[in-house]
Amino acid sequence: MDRAGDKGALSDLAIFGGPRLFTRPRPIGQLAAPSVDQLMGLLAEPLASGELSNHGPQERALEAELAEYHGVRHCIALANAALGLTMLMRVLARGRRGKVVMPAFSFRGLLHFAQWAGQQPSLCDVDPDSHALCPQALRRAIDADTICVLAVTNANEPGNLDAIAAVAAAAGVPLIIDSVYAIGSSWRGQRLGGFGLAEVYSLHATKLLHGFEGGYVTTNDDALAGLLRWLRDADDPAPPPPGWWGLAPLRLDARLNEVHAATGRLALRQLPETIARNRRRHAAWQQAIAGRAGLRLVPYPDPEHEQSNYQVTILDVATPWPLSRDQTLALLQAEGMAIVSYYSPALHRSGQLPAGQVAPALPVSERLAERFIRLPVGELLDESDIAAVGRWFTFIETQGAALAQRLESRSTP
Amino acid sequence: MDRAGDKGALSDLAIFGGPRLFTRPRPIGQLAAPSVDQLMGLLAEPLASGELSNHGPQERALEAELAEYHGVRHCIALANAALGLTMLMRVLARGRRGKVVMPAFSFRGLLHFAQWAGQQPSLCDVDPDSHALCPQALRRAIDADTICVLAVTNANEPGNLDAIAAVAAAAGVPLIIDSVYAIGSSWRGQRLGGFGLAEVYSLHATKLLHGFEGGYVTTNDDALAGLLRWLRDADDPAPPPPGWWGLAPLRLDARLNEVHAATGRLALRQLPETIARNRRRHAAWQQAIAGRAGLRLVPYPDPEHEQSNYQVTILDVATPWPLSRDQTLALLQAEGMAIVSYYSPALHRSGQLPAGQVAPALPVSERLAERFIRLPVGELLDESDIAAVGRWFTFIETQGAALAQRLESRSTP
Repeated sequence: MDRAGDKGALSDLAIFGGPRLFTRPRPIGQLAAPSVDQLMGLLAEPLASGELSNHGPQERALEAELAEYHGVRHCIALANAALGLTMLMRVLARGRRGKVVMPAFSFRGLLHFAQWAGQQPSLCDVDPDSHALCPQALRRAIDADTICVLAVTNANEPGNLDAIAAVAAAAGVPLIIDSVYAIGSSWRGQRLGGFGLAEVYSLHATKLLHGFEGGYVTTNDDALAGLLRWLRDADDPAPPPPGWWGLAPLRLDARLNEVHAATGRLALRQLPETIARNRRRHAAWQQAIAGRAGLRLVPYPDPEHEQSNYQVTILDVATPWPLSRDQTLALLQAEGMAIVSYYSPALHRSGQLPAGQVAPALPVSERLAERFIRLPVGELLDESDIAAVGRWFTFIETQGAALAQRLESRSTP
Repeated sequence: MDRAGDKGALSDLAIFGGPRLFTRPRPIGQLAAPSVDQLMGLLAEPLASGELSNHGPQERALEAELAEYHGVRHCIALANAALGLTMLMRVLARGRRGKVVMPAFSFRGLLHFAQWAGQQPSLCDVDPDSHALCPQALRRAIDADTICVLAVTNANEPGNLDAIAAVAAAAGVPLIIDSVYAIGSSWRGQRLGGFGLAEVYSLHATKLLHGFEGGYVTTNDDALAGLLRWLRDADDPAPPPPGWWGLAPLRLDARLNEVHAATGRLALRQLPETIARNRRRHAAWQQAIAGRAGLRLVPYPDPEHEQSNYQVTILDVATPWPLSRDQTLALLQAEGMAIVSYYSPALHRSGQLPAGQVAPALPVSERLAERFIRLPVGELLDESDIAAVGRWFTFIETQGAALAQRLESRSTP
């Protein structure tokens, strides 16, 4: 048994030395690993033939299947999603050193990838409900130095993609989209994959489509697809493709190998069941949180109208909940949950801006960054675990003021 | 049976429509894939625990084992070798846009990785025997814009590492080394790994240490190791390490996942046997080529004094062999050998220099680039295959002039 019993007194809380609720940590990753038998069935052929990398049959099949899944002309498999974003920003700069406009409430890696692409990140505020780029703020953020807009589609909602695309188009700036957390999501009934000039997805083990590691780009642009295929493999003797070509040759080693590709294909076949399990767990979290003053889950769109993957469960902590977000997070972590705050701090407050760049005021991103906790999700968590955390929340709520006081006295010696 | 019989007439040659010698292509990669049982034994635990990426126990163990193998303080596991080279060049530039001096007779990806790092590749001629950087040419190539020297240690010989290091040190320029093809090699009796400021290795399936994919950096520099560990994972919340820090934050997603790490550990344990098999196959190639006028193999150092991995077998084609290097290569490829010329064309003749950079004259590199063929090697080739190619060479030699004439008439319609 890797779960302790319910708490009866403050001293039972792990933060005060009590037994941890989970002795095996409960994570925030999907971690839908294939079974040993399934994996070996897939790998038997590549292992026997020695065809394990360099655009083998598994990679080609994965690309075809993902293109069909997303309803796009091209899928370009890559070593990971970060390289996809970096290559796209570098290509779209066409040799310029400019700016990439991106949301301030997002993954901190985006700041770094833009700089790898030789560009400055330009942070933009987000919509308070979708947490995606705010179209009005985007209009103000684009200037003559902007080489592209990097939108991010979150699991809870892709954001107003039509409005974002319209702003980018009006400014004559290409739009690329980090859709890592929104695989399987739809926008106005259409599955993501073909929005903007290109979208980028992940095959990392913690994401929905488990390839152990990896990523891919989807696009309907033939020339861009050809260029990305050429750029991803410096070892391939092919000459540069026609068109799109005025930039310095910037090939990389960004291939996806056959092991990842085969595993990703398996995960794609299992995706509907994976999403169904996520939805059940998310419903269990809804029940565990329901009725607790000050707590709510960030909602997913109405499943009658939009598809969602239920891959993340975001807890919104506000008064009158007796503890702060950070206190609540610290207590949950102490109980054996391998969880984190959600996009906190906002990127412009992260201390990782390029040297000399002054952090702008982006009030929505700053406010959102103080509110959320990513709760445990994925295959290493079951519904009885979630119910146990629900009872733990009940205990915290009933202990309210006393607990808050004890935590305060603890932090101010 | 995937091998045809010996040739008796010119029309038996595959290039003229005869049966291919090998119906299953014989490649140039090592491809020492683990057995299914071994792989599953290694993966059972990470698959069950869900701990499949993000610096898990397999990655940490691999790093410790490789540091011990190379006799260095630090091994930093990465998604691939290209990212290691790129990160090193970017870090050593310390925000400058300068030049990286590198050999012109080498892997074409180096041109591209330097540009990803924001640097200009500056090509330097090589030594005619070791094929590594020529120390005298290196001295002339380093100038005030040089941010580092990127040496390459080839499988046949690392080059004069003492002299190269002395030239770099005298110029006050850091030396990094692409040692992808020289894993297991020694220089003056000391195994590679701790030469220069850092060395870079590969775990790609076609290389000696088979992790399916992946790479690593070895270094004895504590500050550099800490910085690379921080840079390789933009998802890690750790703050930047002290020291070495004046550059823009440039983190990447360059993690090695647990599947690759576990496979790489297995390959490391099997490395002595893998090298022993390579050495036997190389000896078989020696025998197959022996005594044919105009053909020789690029030699490895005397095994009494230096360790080598025998990972590549390079055929040197010269008069009086009746066919040119390119004709010989075309015939071998037609027979079902998935082989290529060796570093041809030289990088300054590759058409992939940065826009505006004029190709210098580098006569040794140019001459070497016209001579060599990489023969099939690795686990998908056995000694009877090599003997069959030996008999094939006998046939070519005996047909000499008639064959050359028929090929010439074929190419000039």
